[in-house]
Amino acid sequence: MAQKAQVVSSETFKPPNFRWMQLRLLTYVDVTGRTRKWEMAERSHANKTEGSAVDGVFVVATIHYPVSRLPPELLLIKQFRPPMNKDVIEFVAGLVDKGETPEVAALRELKEETGFVKGSIRGVTSPMPMDPGMSNSQVAMVLVDIDGDDAENRKPIASPEDGEHITVFRVPFSSLEKNLHELEGLGCAVDIAVWAFVYGSMFSAAGQTSPTRFAAKRVGLSAWLTFLGLGLAGVFLLKRRPSLL
Amino acid sequence: MAQKAQVVSSETFKPPNFRWMQLRLLTYVDVTGRTRKWEMAERSHANKTEGSAVDGVFVVATIHYPVSRLPPELLLIKQFRPPMNKDVIEFVAGLVDKGETPEVAALRELKEETGFVKGSIRGVTSPMPMDPGMSNSQVAMVLVDIDGDDAENRKPIASPEDGEHITVFRVPFSSLEKNLHELEGLGCAVDIAVWAFVYGSMFSAAGQTSPTRFAAKRVGLSAWLTFLGLGLAGVFLLKRRPSLL
Repeated sequence: MAQKAQVVSSETFKPPNFRWMQLRLLTYVDVTGRTRKWEMAERSHANKTEGSAVDGVFVVATIHYPVSRLPPELLLIKQFRPPMNKDVIEFVAGLVDKGETPEVAALRELKEETGFVKGSIRGVTSPMPMDPGMSNSQVAMVLVDIDGDDAENRKPIASPEDGEHITVFRVPFSSLEKNLHELEGLGCAVDIAVWAFVYGSMFSAAGQTSPTRFAAKRVGLSAWLTFLGLGLAGVFLLKRRPSLL
Repeated sequence: MAQKAQVVSSETFKPPNFRWMQLRLLTYVDVTGRTRKWEMAERSHANKTEGSAVDGVFVVATIHYPVSRLPPELLLIKQFRPPMNKDVIEFVAGLVDKGETPEVAALRELKEETGFVKGSIRGVTSPMPMDPGMSNSQVAMVLVDIDGDDAENRKPIASPEDGEHITVFRVPFSSLEKNLHELEGLGCAVDIAVWAFVYGSMFSAAGQTSPTRFAAKRVGLSAWLTFLGLGLAGVFLLKRRPSLL
Protein backbone atom coordinates (compact mmCIF):
# COMPACT_ATOMS: atom_id res chain seq x y z
CA MET A 1 0.00 0.00 0.00
CA ALA A 2 1.36 3.42 -0.93
CA GLN A 3 2.63 5.63 1.87
CA LYS A 4 4.52 8.89 2.05
CA ALA A 5 8.19 8.33 1.26
CA GLN A 6 10.65 9.96 3.64
CA VAL A 7 14.20 10.06 4.87
CA VAL A 8 14.48 8.45 8.30
CA SER A 9 18.18 8.83 9.11
CA SER A 10 21.52 9.81 7.64
CA GLU A 11 25.26 9.54 8.18
CA THR A 12 27.55 12.43 7.28
CA PHE A 13 31.04 12.12 5.79
CA LYS A 14 33.25 15.20 5.75
CA PRO A 15 36.98 14.89 5.07
CA PRO A 16 38.98 16.78 7.72
CA ASN A 17 40.31 19.41 5.29
CA PHE A 18 36.90 20.15 3.72
CA ARG A 19 34.99 23.28 4.59
CA TRP A 20 32.28 23.70 1.94
CA MET A 21 31.06 20.24 0.97
CA GLN A 22 30.15 16.92 2.53
CA LEU A 23 28.57 13.59 1.61
CA ARG A 24 25.60 11.99 3.29
CA LEU A 25 24.33 8.43 3.20
CA LEU A 26 20.56 8.61 3.61
CA THR A 27 18.27 5.90 4.82
CA TYR A 28 14.76 6.41 3.52
CA VAL A 29 11.49 4.55 3.33
CA ASP A 30 9.99 4.42 -0.17
CA VAL A 31 6.29 4.55 -1.08
CA THR A 32 5.99 0.78 -0.74
CA GLY A 33 7.34 0.88 2.82
CA ARG A 34 10.70 -0.59 1.88
CA THR A 35 13.84 0.83 3.50
CA ARG A 36 16.50 1.97 1.02
CA LYS A 37 19.80 3.85 0.90
CA TRP A 38 20.71 6.97 -1.14
CA GLU A 39 24.01 8.80 -1.47
CA MET A 40 24.04 12.57 -1.73
CA ALA A 41 26.31 15.62 -1.57
CA GLU A 42 25.53 18.90 0.13
CA ARG A 43 26.96 22.31 0.83
CA SER A 44 28.07 22.64 4.43
CA HIS A 45 29.54 26.12 4.58
CA ALA A 46 29.30 27.82 7.93
CA ASN A 47 27.36 30.90 6.90
CA LYS A 48 24.48 28.98 5.33
CA THR A 49 21.34 30.02 7.14
CA GLU A 50 19.91 27.14 9.17
CA GLY A 51 16.71 25.94 7.56
CA SER A 52 17.00 28.47 4.74
CA ALA A 53 14.99 27.48 1.72
CA VAL A 54 17.71 28.37 -0.78
CA ASP A 55 21.48 28.08 -1.00
CA GLY A 56 21.71 30.84 -3.56
CA VAL A 57 20.04 33.02 -6.14
CA PHE A 58 20.14 33.26 -9.91
CA VAL A 59 19.61 36.76 -11.22
CA VAL A 60 17.67 36.68 -14.49
CA ALA A 61 18.41 40.24 -15.50
CA THR A 62 17.07 41.84 -18.65
CA ILE A 63 18.34 45.20 -19.82
CA HIS A 64 15.88 47.52 -21.54
CA TYR A 65 16.69 50.81 -23.24
CA PRO A 66 13.52 52.91 -23.11
CA VAL A 67 15.28 56.08 -24.34
CA SER A 68 17.95 54.90 -26.75
CA ARG A 69 15.63 52.15 -28.05
CA LEU A 70 18.42 49.58 -28.32
CA PRO A 71 17.18 45.98 -28.49
CA PRO A 72 16.58 44.31 -25.09
CA GLU A 73 19.42 42.17 -23.74
CA LEU A 74 19.91 39.30 -21.31
CA LEU A 75 22.71 39.78 -18.79
CA LEU A 76 25.05 36.78 -18.52
CA ILE A 77 28.44 36.16 -16.97
CA LYS A 78 31.38 33.90 -17.71
CA GLN A 79 33.70 32.52 -15.06
CA PHE A 80 36.10 29.61 -14.66
CA ARG A 81 34.41 26.82 -12.75
CA PRO A 82 36.94 24.38 -11.29
CA PRO A 83 34.50 21.42 -11.07
CA MET A 84 33.95 21.71 -14.85
CA ASN A 85 37.58 22.71 -15.55
CA LYS A 86 36.31 25.26 -18.04
CA ASP A 87 34.63 28.64 -18.36
CA VAL A 88 30.87 28.48 -17.81
CA ILE A 89 28.22 30.92 -19.03
CA GLU A 90 25.66 31.50 -16.30
CA PHE A 91 23.14 33.92 -14.93
CA VAL A 92 24.60 36.28 -12.34
CA ALA A 93 24.46 34.17 -9.19
CA GLY A 94 25.65 33.82 -5.66
CA LEU A 95 25.11 32.25 -2.30
CA VAL A 96 22.64 33.90 0.05
CA ASP A 97 24.38 35.27 3.13
CA LYS A 98 23.09 34.59 6.63
CA GLY A 99 19.92 36.59 7.21
CA GLU A 100 19.66 37.88 3.64
CA THR A 101 16.51 37.68 1.58
CA PRO A 102 16.87 36.38 -2.00
CA GLU A 103 16.02 39.89 -3.26
CA VAL A 104 18.79 41.55 -1.27
CA ALA A 105 21.28 38.84 -2.26
CA ALA A 106 20.32 39.28 -5.92
CA LEU A 107 20.89 43.04 -5.98
CA ARG A 108 24.14 42.63 -4.03
CA GLU A 109 25.45 40.01 -6.46
CA LEU A 110 24.29 42.08 -9.43
CA LYS A 111 26.31 45.02 -8.17
CA GLU A 112 29.38 42.96 -7.23
CA GLU A 113 29.56 40.87 -10.38
CA THR A 114 28.39 43.32 -13.04
CA GLY A 115 28.48 46.82 -11.54
CA PHE A 116 24.80 47.48 -12.23
CA VAL A 117 23.62 49.34 -9.15
CA LYS A 118 20.03 49.98 -10.11
CA GLY A 119 17.66 47.17 -10.93
CA SER A 120 13.98 46.76 -10.21
CA ILE A 121 12.80 43.39 -8.98
CA ARG A 122 9.99 41.97 -11.04
CA GLY A 123 9.56 38.73 -9.17
CA VAL A 124 11.10 35.90 -7.21
CA THR A 125 10.53 32.25 -7.97
CA SER A 126 9.99 29.41 -5.53
CA PRO A 127 13.09 27.51 -4.35
CA MET A 128 14.13 25.17 -7.17
CA PRO A 129 16.31 22.06 -6.82
CA MET A 130 19.31 22.06 -9.17
CA ASP A 131 20.17 18.35 -9.25
CA PRO A 132 17.71 16.61 -6.94
CA GLY A 133 19.02 13.10 -7.60
CA MET A 134 22.45 14.13 -6.33
CA SER A 135 22.13 17.01 -3.87
CA ASN A 136 19.77 19.21 -1.88
CA SER A 137 21.21 22.34 -3.51
CA GLN A 138 18.51 24.79 -4.50
CA VAL A 139 18.18 28.35 -5.69
CA ALA A 140 15.54 30.99 -6.28
CA MET A 141 15.52 32.97 -9.49
CA VAL A 142 15.16 36.70 -9.02
CA LEU A 143 13.84 38.43 -12.13
CA VAL A 144 15.36 41.90 -12.43
CA ASP A 145 14.69 44.69 -14.93
CA ILE A 146 17.58 47.03 -15.63
CA ASP A 147 17.10 50.41 -17.27
CA GLY A 148 20.21 50.58 -19.44
CA ASP A 149 19.63 54.25 -20.20
CA ASP A 150 19.61 55.28 -16.54
CA ALA A 151 22.61 57.52 -15.78
CA GLU A 152 23.76 55.27 -12.93
CA ASN A 153 23.73 52.22 -15.19
CA ARG A 154 25.64 53.74 -18.10
CA LYS A 155 29.13 52.69 -17.08
CA PRO A 156 28.80 49.80 -14.63
CA ILE A 157 31.98 48.92 -12.70
CA ALA A 158 32.08 45.49 -11.09
CA SER A 159 33.59 44.89 -7.65
CA PRO A 160 34.16 41.14 -7.52
CA GLU A 161 35.32 39.34 -4.39
CA ASP A 162 38.88 38.08 -4.11
CA GLY A 163 39.22 35.08 -6.42
CA GLU A 164 36.24 35.96 -8.61
CA HIS A 165 37.23 36.67 -12.21
CA ILE A 166 34.10 37.43 -14.14
CA THR A 167 33.38 38.51 -17.69
CA VAL A 168 30.04 40.21 -18.25
CA PHE A 169 28.03 39.65 -21.44
CA ARG A 170 24.99 41.57 -22.63
CA VAL A 171 23.36 39.42 -25.27
CA PRO A 172 20.47 40.71 -27.42
CA PHE A 173 17.50 38.34 -27.11
CA SER A 174 17.35 38.07 -30.87
CA SER A 175 20.77 36.38 -31.07
CA LEU A 176 20.87 34.44 -27.80
CA GLU A 177 20.91 30.96 -29.31
CA LYS A 178 23.52 31.88 -31.93
CA ASN A 179 25.79 33.61 -29.41
CA LEU A 180 25.58 30.78 -26.88
CA HIS A 181 26.52 28.24 -29.54
CA GLU A 182 29.45 30.45 -30.54
CA LEU A 183 30.65 30.53 -26.93
CA GLU A 184 30.34 26.74 -26.75
CA GLY A 185 32.40 26.58 -29.93
CA LEU A 186 35.11 28.53 -28.10
CA GLY A 187 35.21 25.93 -25.32
CA CYS A 188 32.74 27.36 -22.81
CA ALA A 189 29.91 25.39 -21.25
CA VAL A 190 26.48 26.99 -20.88
CA ASP A 191 24.59 26.35 -17.63
CA ILE A 192 21.38 24.34 -17.92
CA ALA A 193 19.26 27.11 -16.39
CA VAL A 194 20.38 29.48 -19.16
CA TRP A 195 19.77 26.97 -21.96
CA ALA A 196 16.42 25.86 -20.52
CA PHE A 197 15.34 29.50 -20.31
CA VAL A 198 16.47 30.19 -23.87
CA TYR A 199 14.87 27.03 -25.28
CA GLY A 200 11.71 27.84 -23.36
CA SER A 201 11.70 31.31 -24.88
CA MET A 202 11.48 29.68 -28.29
CA PHE A 203 8.14 28.22 -27.33
CA SER A 204 5.26 30.64 -27.29
CA ALA A 205 3.12 30.77 -24.17
CA ALA A 206 0.48 28.86 -26.10
CA GLY A 207 2.83 25.90 -26.41
CA GLN A 208 3.47 26.08 -30.10
CA THR A 209 7.08 25.99 -31.12
CA SER A 210 8.37 28.93 -33.03
CA PRO A 211 8.82 27.27 -36.44
CA THR A 212 11.48 29.60 -37.78
CA ARG A 213 13.83 29.12 -34.83
CA PHE A 214 13.62 25.37 -34.54
CA ALA A 215 13.36 24.57 -38.22
CA ALA A 216 17.05 24.77 -39.03
CA LYS A 217 17.97 22.67 -36.01
CA ARG A 218 15.35 20.05 -36.81
CA VAL A 219 16.55 19.41 -40.33
CA GLY A 220 20.19 19.34 -39.29
CA LEU A 221 19.64 16.85 -36.51
CA SER A 222 17.30 14.65 -38.50
CA ALA A 223 19.92 14.33 -41.17
CA TRP A 224 22.59 13.62 -38.57
CA LEU A 225 20.50 10.94 -36.87
CA THR A 226 19.61 9.39 -40.18
CA PHE A 227 23.27 9.06 -41.07
CA LEU A 228 24.37 7.69 -37.71
CA GLY A 229 21.42 5.56 -36.80
CA LEU A 230 20.28 4.12 -40.06
CA GLY A 231 23.61 3.84 -41.83
CA LEU A 232 23.18 2.46 -45.31
CA ALA A 233 19.41 2.64 -45.00
CA GLY A 234 19.86 6.35 -44.48
CA VAL A 235 21.96 6.62 -47.63
CA PHE A 236 19.22 4.86 -49.61
CA LEU A 237 16.61 7.09 -48.04
CA LEU A 238 18.50 10.21 -48.95
CA LYS A 239 19.04 8.95 -52.49
CA ARG A 240 15.34 8.37 -52.92
CA ARG A 241 14.29 11.61 -51.22
CA PRO A 242 17.04 14.14 -51.83
CA SER A 243 14.63 16.86 -50.76
CA LEU A 244 15.41 15.88 -47.16
CA LEU A 245 18.79 17.54 -47.55
CA MET B 1 48.76 38.96 -16.62
CA ALA B 2 45.73 36.88 -17.52
CA GLN B 3 46.30 33.24 -18.36
CA LYS B 4 44.03 30.28 -18.93
CA ALA B 5 42.69 28.97 -15.61
CA GLN B 6 42.91 25.22 -15.11
CA VAL B 7 42.81 22.38 -12.64
CA VAL B 8 46.30 21.01 -12.01
CA SER B 9 45.66 18.21 -9.52
CA SER B 10 43.02 16.67 -7.28
CA GLU B 11 42.54 14.38 -4.32
CA THR B 12 39.54 12.04 -4.17
CA PHE B 13 37.59 11.12 -1.03
CA LYS B 14 35.18 8.20 -1.18
CA PRO B 15 33.78 6.67 1.99
CA PRO B 16 34.18 2.87 1.95
CA ASN B 17 30.44 2.15 1.77
CA PHE B 18 29.78 4.65 -1.05
CA ARG B 19 29.20 3.47 -4.60
CA TRP B 20 27.69 6.41 -6.51
CA MET B 21 29.25 9.60 -5.18
CA GLN B 22 32.59 10.99 -4.11
CA LEU B 23 34.20 14.28 -3.13
CA ARG B 24 37.27 15.82 -4.74
CA LEU B 25 39.58 18.56 -3.52
CA LEU B 26 40.85 20.35 -6.62
CA THR B 27 43.99 22.40 -6.94
CA TYR B 28 43.68 24.92 -9.75
CA VAL B 29 45.50 27.92 -11.10
CA ASP B 30 43.29 30.97 -11.60
CA VAL B 31 43.57 33.56 -14.39
CA THR B 32 46.07 35.60 -12.36
CA GLY B 33 48.38 32.60 -11.97
CA ARG B 34 47.53 32.07 -8.32
CA THR B 35 47.10 28.52 -7.03
CA ARG B 36 43.79 27.88 -5.25
CA LYS B 37 41.68 25.03 -3.83
CA TRP B 38 38.09 24.07 -4.69
CA GLU B 39 35.84 21.39 -3.21
CA MET B 40 33.49 19.46 -5.46
CA ALA B 41 31.23 16.41 -5.60
CA GLU B 42 30.93 13.99 -8.49
CA ARG B 43 29.13 10.88 -9.58
CA SER B 44 31.39 7.86 -9.53
CA HIS B 45 29.13 5.00 -10.54
CA ALA B 46 30.80 2.15 -12.32
CA ASN B 47 28.82 2.20 -15.55
CA LYS B 48 29.52 5.85 -16.30
CA THR B 49 31.22 5.95 -19.67
CA GLU B 50 34.82 7.10 -19.35
CA GLY B 51 35.17 10.57 -20.81
CA SER B 52 31.48 10.74 -21.70
CA ALA B 53 30.27 14.30 -22.16
CA VAL B 54 27.07 13.77 -20.20
CA ASP B 55 26.00 11.92 -17.06
CA GLY B 56 22.40 11.85 -18.13
CA VAL B 57 19.63 13.17 -20.33
CA PHE B 58 16.55 15.30 -19.77
CA VAL B 59 13.69 14.46 -22.11
CA VAL B 60 11.77 17.61 -23.01
CA ALA B 61 8.74 15.83 -24.45
CA THR B 62 5.78 17.65 -25.93
CA ILE B 63 2.60 15.78 -26.81
CA HIS B 64 0.65 16.95 -29.82
CA TYR B 65 -2.76 15.73 -30.94
CA PRO B 66 -2.97 16.30 -34.69
CA VAL B 67 -6.20 14.31 -35.08
CA SER B 68 -8.16 14.90 -31.88
CA ARG B 69 -6.96 18.52 -31.76
CA LEU B 70 -6.50 18.50 -27.98
CA PRO B 71 -4.22 21.31 -26.72
CA PRO B 72 -0.49 20.47 -26.73
CA GLU B 73 0.99 19.24 -23.46
CA LEU B 74 4.36 19.06 -21.73
CA LEU B 75 5.25 15.66 -20.27
CA LEU B 76 6.52 15.82 -16.69
CA ILE B 77 7.10 13.29 -13.94
CA LYS B 78 6.99 13.32 -10.17
CA GLN B 79 9.15 11.14 -7.98
CA PHE B 80 10.43 11.12 -4.42
CA ARG B 81 13.98 12.46 -4.31
CA PRO B 82 15.77 11.47 -1.11
CA PRO B 83 18.30 14.36 -1.23
CA MET B 84 15.37 16.82 -1.20
CA ASN B 85 13.26 14.63 1.11
CA LYS B 86 10.23 15.47 -1.02
CA ASP B 87 8.55 14.76 -4.32
CA VAL B 88 10.11 16.64 -7.21
CA ILE B 89 8.53 17.56 -10.56
CA GLU B 90 11.05 17.03 -13.36
CA PHE B 91 11.44 16.28 -17.01
CA VAL B 92 11.70 12.58 -17.78
CA ALA B 93 15.37 11.90 -17.11
CA GLY B 94 17.96 9.23 -16.59
CA LEU B 95 21.60 8.35 -16.59
CA VAL B 96 23.18 7.42 -19.89
CA ASP B 97 24.29 3.79 -19.90
CA LYS B 98 27.74 2.78 -21.08
CA GLY B 99 27.97 3.09 -24.84
CA GLU B 100 24.55 4.72 -25.25
CA THR B 101 23.95 7.90 -27.22
CA PRO B 102 21.83 10.58 -25.53
CA GLU B 103 19.09 9.92 -28.13
CA VAL B 104 18.90 6.20 -27.34
CA ALA B 105 18.98 6.88 -23.60
CA ALA B 106 16.17 9.43 -23.99
CA LEU B 107 13.83 7.08 -25.84
CA ARG B 108 14.66 4.23 -23.40
CA GLU B 109 13.89 6.42 -20.37
CA LEU B 110 10.75 7.78 -22.04
CA LYS B 111 9.47 4.24 -22.49
CA GLU B 112 10.51 3.05 -19.00
CA GLU B 113 9.21 6.04 -17.07
CA THR B 114 6.08 6.96 -19.02
CA GLY B 115 5.24 4.09 -21.35
CA PHE B 116 5.37 6.23 -24.48
CA VAL B 117 7.03 3.99 -27.04
CA LYS B 118 6.93 6.26 -30.05
CA GLY B 119 8.58 9.66 -30.04
CA SER B 120 10.38 11.55 -32.75
CA ILE B 121 13.57 13.32 -31.80
CA ARG B 122 13.57 16.97 -32.74
CA GLY B 123 16.97 17.86 -31.41
CA VAL B 124 19.67 17.33 -28.83
CA THR B 125 21.32 20.12 -26.91
CA SER B 126 24.97 20.49 -25.99
CA PRO B 127 26.07 19.07 -22.63
CA MET B 128 24.95 21.49 -19.93
CA PRO B 129 26.36 21.73 -16.40
CA MET B 130 23.70 21.47 -13.68
CA ASP B 131 25.49 23.08 -10.73
CA PRO B 132 28.97 24.02 -11.96
CA GLY B 133 30.09 25.61 -8.70
CA MET B 134 29.51 22.33 -6.88
CA SER B 135 29.86 19.40 -9.29
CA ASN B 136 30.80 18.31 -12.79
CA SER B 137 27.37 16.77 -13.32
CA GLN B 138 26.00 17.57 -16.75
CA VAL B 139 23.14 16.52 -18.99
CA ALA B 140 21.94 16.94 -22.54
CA MET B 141 18.33 17.83 -23.23
CA VAL B 142 16.69 15.69 -25.88
CA LEU B 143 13.67 17.38 -27.44
CA VAL B 144 11.04 14.78 -28.34
CA ASP B 145 7.72 15.16 -30.13
CA ILE B 146 5.02 12.65 -29.22
CA ASP B 147 1.97 12.08 -31.38
CA GLY B 148 -0.68 11.54 -28.72
CA ASP B 149 -3.17 10.31 -31.29
CA ASP B 150 -0.93 7.50 -32.54
CA ALA B 151 -2.48 4.12 -31.71
CA GLU B 152 0.70 2.96 -29.94
CA ASN B 153 0.68 6.05 -27.72
CA ARG B 154 -2.97 5.91 -26.67
CA LYS B 155 -2.55 3.89 -23.49
CA PRO B 156 1.07 4.15 -22.39
CA ILE B 157 2.15 1.65 -19.73
CA ALA B 158 5.32 2.50 -17.82
CA SER B 159 7.89 -0.14 -16.87
CA PRO B 160 9.97 1.51 -14.14
CA GLU B 161 13.08 -0.06 -12.66
CA ASP B 162 12.99 -1.56 -9.18
CA GLY B 163 12.79 1.30 -6.69
CA GLU B 164 11.45 3.84 -9.18
CA HIS B 165 7.99 5.09 -8.27
CA ILE B 166 6.97 7.64 -10.82
CA THR B 167 3.80 9.62 -11.44
CA VAL B 168 3.37 10.94 -14.98
CA PHE B 169 1.79 14.33 -15.66
CA ARG B 170 0.64 15.72 -18.98
CA VAL B 171 0.25 19.44 -18.47
CA PRO B 172 -1.32 21.69 -21.12
CA PHE B 173 1.09 24.50 -22.02
CA SER B 174 -1.63 27.02 -21.33
CA SER B 175 -1.80 26.12 -17.63
CA LEU B 176 1.82 25.15 -16.91
CA GLU B 177 2.62 27.95 -14.49
CA LYS B 178 -0.67 27.58 -12.61
CA ASN B 179 -0.35 23.79 -12.32
CA LEU B 180 3.28 23.93 -11.19
CA HIS B 181 2.40 26.41 -8.46
CA GLU B 182 -0.45 24.14 -7.38
CA LEU B 183 1.96 21.22 -7.11
CA GLU B 184 4.34 23.37 -5.06
CA GLY B 185 1.39 24.22 -2.82
CA LEU B 186 0.94 20.49 -2.24
CA GLY B 187 4.54 20.16 -1.03
CA CYS B 188 6.36 19.25 -4.26
CA ALA B 189 9.48 21.00 -5.50
CA VAL B 190 9.83 21.85 -9.20
CA ASP B 191 13.24 21.28 -10.81
CA ILE B 192 15.06 24.39 -12.01
CA ALA B 193 15.26 23.14 -15.60
CA VAL B 194 11.46 22.90 -15.71
CA TRP B 195 10.90 26.32 -14.17
CA ALA B 196 13.59 27.97 -16.33
CA PHE B 197 11.98 26.45 -19.42
CA VAL B 198 8.51 27.59 -18.36
CA TYR B 199 9.66 31.11 -17.43
CA GLY B 200 11.57 31.30 -20.69
CA SER B 201 8.42 30.30 -22.54
CA MET B 202 6.75 33.41 -21.13
CA PHE B 203 9.27 35.52 -22.99
CA SER B 204 8.73 35.84 -26.69
CA ALA B 205 11.63 35.11 -28.99
CA ALA B 206 11.94 38.85 -29.47
CA GLY B 207 12.75 39.29 -25.80
CA GLN B 208 9.62 41.05 -24.73
CA THR B 209 7.91 39.65 -21.69
CA SER B 210 4.35 38.55 -22.10
CA PRO B 211 2.64 41.23 -20.01
CA THR B 212 -0.50 39.28 -19.16
CA ARG B 213 1.38 36.31 -17.69
CA PHE B 214 3.79 38.26 -15.53
CA ALA B 215 1.42 41.00 -14.44
CA ALA B 216 -0.35 39.05 -11.69
CA LYS B 217 2.94 37.84 -10.25
CA ARG B 218 4.40 41.33 -10.21
CA VAL B 219 1.60 42.78 -8.13
CA GLY B 220 1.60 39.82 -5.76
CA LEU B 221 5.33 40.00 -5.17
CA SER B 222 5.38 43.75 -4.82
CA ALA B 223 2.79 43.49 -2.09
CA TRP B 224 4.74 40.70 -0.42
CA LEU B 225 7.99 42.66 -0.52
CA THR B 226 6.25 45.70 0.82
CA PHE B 227 4.96 43.73 3.77
CA LEU B 228 8.20 41.99 4.59
CA GLY B 229 10.70 44.68 3.78
CA LEU B 230 8.98 47.85 4.78
CA GLY B 231 7.05 46.59 7.78
CA LEU B 232 4.98 49.34 9.33
CA ALA B 233 5.69 51.63 6.43
CA GLY B 234 3.99 49.00 4.28
CA VAL B 235 0.94 49.01 6.51
CA PHE B 236 0.68 52.78 6.18
CA LEU B 237 1.12 52.55 2.45
CA LEU B 238 -1.68 50.01 2.13
CA LYS B 239 -3.93 52.10 4.35
CA ARG B 240 -3.40 55.07 2.11
CA ARG B 241 -3.72 53.09 -1.11
CA PRO B 242 -6.10 50.20 -0.44
CA SER B 243 -6.37 49.67 -4.17
CA LEU B 244 -3.03 47.81 -4.00
CA LEU B 245 -4.81 44.94 -2.29
